[in-house]
Amino acid sequence: MSEVYVAGVGQTKFGELWEQDLRDLGLNAAKQALTDARQEISAVDAILVANMNAGIFSGQEHLGALFAAELRTNVPAFHIEGACASGGLAINLAWTMLASGQYQNILVIGAEKMTDVDGAEATRGLNSAADEEWEGFYGVTFPSLYAMIAREHMRLYGTTREDLAAVSVKNHANALLNPDAQFRKAISVAAVLEATPVAEPLGLLDCSPISDGAAAVILSTRKPKNSSKHSVRILASNVAQSSLSLHNRQEISTIDATITAAQMAYKAAKLKAADIDIAEVHDCFTIAEILAYEDLGFAKKGQGVDLIRSGATNRDGKLPVNVSGGLKACGHPVGATGVKQIVELTKQLQGRAGERQVQKQLKHALAHNVGGSGATAVVTILALDNIDT
Amino acid sequence: MSEVYVAGVGQTKFGELWEQDLRDLGLNAAKQALTDARQEISAVDAILVANMNAGIFSGQEHLGALFAAELRTNVPAFHIEGACASGGLAINLAWTMLASGQYQNILVIGAEKMTDVDGAEATRGLNSAADEEWEGFYGVTFPSLYAMIAREHMRLYGTTREDLAAVSVKNHANALLNPDAQFRKAISVAAVLEATPVAEPLGLLDCSPISDGAAAVILSTRKPKNSSKHSVRILASNVAQSSLSLHNRQEISTIDATITAAQMAYKAAKLKAADIDIAEVHDCFTIAEILAYEDLGFAKKGQGVDLIRSGATNRDGKLPVNVSGGLKACGHPVGATGVKQIVELTKQLQGRAGERQVQKQLKHALAHNVGGSGATAVVTILALDNIDT
Repeated sequence: MSEVYVAGVGQTKFGELWEQDLRDLGLNAAKQALTDARQEISAVDAILVANMNAGIFSGQEHLGALFAAELRTNVPAFHIEGACASGGLAINLAWTMLASGQYQNILVIGAEKMTDVDGAEATRGLNSAADEEWEGFYGVTFPSLYAMIAREHMRLYGTTREDLAAVSVKNHANALLNPDAQFRKAISVAAVLEATPVAEPLGLLDCSPISDGAAAVILSTRKPKNSSKHSVRILASNVAQSSLSLHNRQEISTIDATITAAQMAYKAAKLKAADIDIAEVHDCFTIAEILAYEDLGFAKKGQGVDLIRSGATNRDGKLPVNVSGGLKACGHPVGATGVKQIVELTKQLQGRAGERQVQKQLKHALAHNVGGSGATAVVTILALDNIDT
Repeated sequence: MSEVYVAGVGQTKFGELWEQDLRDLGLNAAKQALTDARQEISAVDAILVANMNAGIFSGQEHLGALFAAELRTNVPAFHIEGACASGGLAINLAWTMLASGQYQNILVIGAEKMTDVDGAEATRGLNSAADEEWEGFYGVTFPSLYAMIAREHMRLYGTTREDLAAVSVKNHANALLNPDAQFRKAISVAAVLEATPVAEPLGLLDCSPISDGAAAVILSTRKPKNSSKHSVRILASNVAQSSLSLHNRQEISTIDATITAAQMAYKAAKLKAADIDIAEVHDCFTIAEILAYEDLGFAKKGQGVDLIRSGATNRDGKLPVNVSGGLKACGHPVGATGVKQIVELTKQLQGRAGERQVQKQLKHALAHNVGGSGATAVVTILALDNIDT
């Protein structure tokens, strides 16, 4: 298949953005991506919009048509949904569509406007990512699902609340340097441990927030015009599924869809986990980042905590993870998250991430986006072209 | 690109199906399609689920994961949304995905469960297909949008309420012969004219109903196994967009997205409108079928009514349209509709549509699926292989 390049990227601030609605957010990110790619909208031959819950949150579906109309184009436009993995799925589909030869230049917009409804309605919307019949109906919410996962991981591997807290502390420290992050505030392990319990062992500072925000990328079969930047290519993008409900999995201390998607992606990219220089992973709850370390192969099963204890995944560590601040501290506007991971990694690979730029040479980057309690996982591997490391 | 075949089709009954939820409906259709294709689920390498409003109607999003899990597979699964064109968009995407060479055999499920909420909530859900900020917020609903379209068509071309009624009468007559149809009841022009007004000039019998139902197809790059049936191929599938809001169009007596998509599809299929032997078009309201005749090129602009007046689009006419009963009488479970059109046309091309089988020889069939008041249009052209006409 043809090479697929990240031709341009854009992102709004993430947070409680009272002055912007879904359309403003998505358009803002899209226009930034077009500008970054030095392209007019006429160069785009399809649009994919990743969003989970605009029907409930904003009374607006038909999001492909919405953004095509606002951008003044009549090219095919699709709304892609896969819960919190919507963004990763849209990136994956765009990549496949480019491989078909029918499209050469696709705009992927991920956007979510979550703060126009109250907390109960937001929870109702997010719960639609779980199995409504066998989980949601009985009162299960996502913090409770991930709390069960955390308890099992603690039981099997001796993971502690302090380990989980360290993930949050790291990601908050990273967000301090990210002007687009929702929470630019350093926190301590003690603060995480003392925070209001949400679903024990997870407290408020173990949980990613309700956020507004958007991100956009232009994926292209044409090598990007901007010769002052090294080109970023997608080496692999893989999707795998697992059971929608947690109770149907053989093992809940692991996300088996992540393992499957990662193995396929490493194989397709002809790389090993050890070749990855930087990653953005799906830390919807602190435990999820520990699972990601293990399921992506950065650590052996049960030893993910070593990476956080040793500082290996700090911004100046061997494998920086969630330098953006992750879902926890940069924010988690659901449909935007998987797209924003690609935005962040592209900027890091190209050395234009500002204050938070990782200083070591980067060649291979990995994005990991999860839907629900792990029913969907998307792993995408990016590489910087034309450098020797 | 490789040829794409319709390897198998399935459909549930459409109607008020109190005993079946969204999952039952989708699985039922999917299993029928697998059986029809003589395939096990292990042969399927991706799943696309077309649905508009399950978040609101059933508290369930993440539909790709839902159906992958229920079908016991971990292949990539995506939920595609584009209002009432969700099904057509999913067919189009599957076709593109097959062209990529990354997939060989894709299951497309279209499903919608609309009767678990009351009418006000159903209207709220459906309204999310319109422009919430500039239409829905001000109280506009879909009958009122199509009523404005109808009034303008009447003003410009002398279309009468009787012409509109004749569309409904024809489609009800067709549904009489379709065991899966929601309304198996003959109606008269007088009954349509006397029905409760919804948004004048449209009355209750000018409007497609609220429906539950599902349809599924398996699209494949492999020629189907069942040698007793002629193979059906997709010759073209094209998507076009227009403004989301009606007031932003230059002309509202036409659906310009249909014109664009149809012209691209005819060109890709190397066919003219006159080559089409049978069509399923998007008759969400009676006026929409008249627009479809014109915008698809079956009649000149303003002369669509001639086809209904002359009986040309009756089941025994020159160009049978909506032999299934259409959205009006077969029913309109939103996400299912665009998939069900492919199911119906495949059966008709292969001569296995039972009592409603069109008797003339069929070679080329056209499916036309619209989202919102015309912001999205999908035109798909099918052909029967290996026959001379």
